[in-house]
Parts: sequence; structure tokens; C-alpha cells
Amino acid sequence: MGTLPSGTISVMFIAQRSEKDDDGYARAAAAMGDLSACQPGYIGIDSVRGHDGLGITISYWASEADAKAWRDHPEHIAIREAGRDRWYTSYSLHVAMITRSYDWQKT
Amino acid sequence: MGTLPSGTISVMFIAQRSEKDDDGYARAAAAMGDLSACQPGYIGIDSVRGHDGLGITISYWASEADAKAWRDHPEHIAIREAGRDRWYTSYSLHVAMITRSYDWQKT
Repeated sequence: MGTLPSGTISVMFIAQRSEKDDDGYARAAAAMGDLSACQPGYIGIDSVRGHDGLGITISYWASEADAKAWRDHPEHIAIREAGRDRWYTSYSLHVAMITRSYDWQKT
Repeated sequence: MGTLPSGTISVMFIAQRSEKDDDGYARAAAAMGDLSACQPGYIGIDSVRGHDGLGITISYWASEADAKAWRDHPEHIAIREAGRDRWYTSYSLHVAMITRSYDWQKT
């Protein structure tokens, strides 16, 4: 994402993948990506996974209510339970309101 | 990082590496990691780079003043200029105040 307006909500999800069920995880991640992008207030996402299985995904939302509505989406809840059961060994999640934002591109 | 207190400042840095100067970049990244960890208000860092060169680093600070002091540290400023010159093709940076935070570990 480029520069974001102040007040944008960022949801930082930092998660260590287990070594289990790569195919199921990939399908679920793609489905959740598509579904989240259709939710009210969705702005965008940045996501990276390293070779050691640690991943950071940041999703951006227009309001706290939009972020909470996605947290409480029934399909998202079901996937979260599968994540704790099979796909992750640990994670942290931080919700934060953006106060400053910049972007830069090489010209 | 595990669960963080409300009011913690997160600095999200999402950057695309160029394919230049891996050694110089690695040295600078290690030096900045060490130096940032000694700054007042430093809480911790999460950092991941994917195989395509996209990276996300989130640093956590006790206050906005601490995050700004690190932004304005002379060695950090010099490294940032080298980053724009050689190491990155684009980046975004978002500063945000954490309002909710959780962590989970498989038992």
C-alpha cells in the first residue's frame, strides 16, 4: 500500500507456520484473501512469508468497526480455528490506528 | 513480540529490495538492528523478507517521541539515504498506535 490516511486501522498478524498441510493452508489463505477484499471498509493488504515460515500480514481498514466485523465474520472465525489446529504454532495480532504514513518509489 | 500494551507505537516498514549490494545491505541491516535496540523506548521488532525481495519490518516503541527520535538519529538518517540510493526500489512506512493486542502459542 502507498500512503494511507490518518485514522486508517492496521491489523498486524505475525505468525509462525507449522510444517503441516501446505495445500490446505494455501487454499484457505487464498480464499480469505478474496473474501476479506469484499468486506466493507477493506483498503488493502501487505503480506510476506520468509523461508523459515515466519509471516507478517498487515490488513488495512477504514474503521475499527470494519476491522471488528471482519474478525467476527463466520467464515473467518472457522478458518481461525483451523489455523490454531493445524497451520500455526504461534502468532501475535496487533490492531493500531495510523497517525503518519509515507511512501517512496525510485524514479 | 507477544501481547503489547495499548498505546505502544508500531512503525511498519514495507520495502522492496533492489537486487543490488546484498553484502552492504546485510551489514547495514544488522548494524541498524543493534543500534535501534539501544535507543530509549525501544520495545522490539518483527521482520520478514520473502523470496521475491519484499520485506516487512515492524518496530515497536514506548512513545511517539521515541519513534521520532529514532527516525531522526544521525546514523539512521545516513542509512536511509543509502537505502534510497542502492537497496530499495520502493517502500511504504506507516506509524500507528496500538489499541488491541493478543498473542497465542500452541500448547
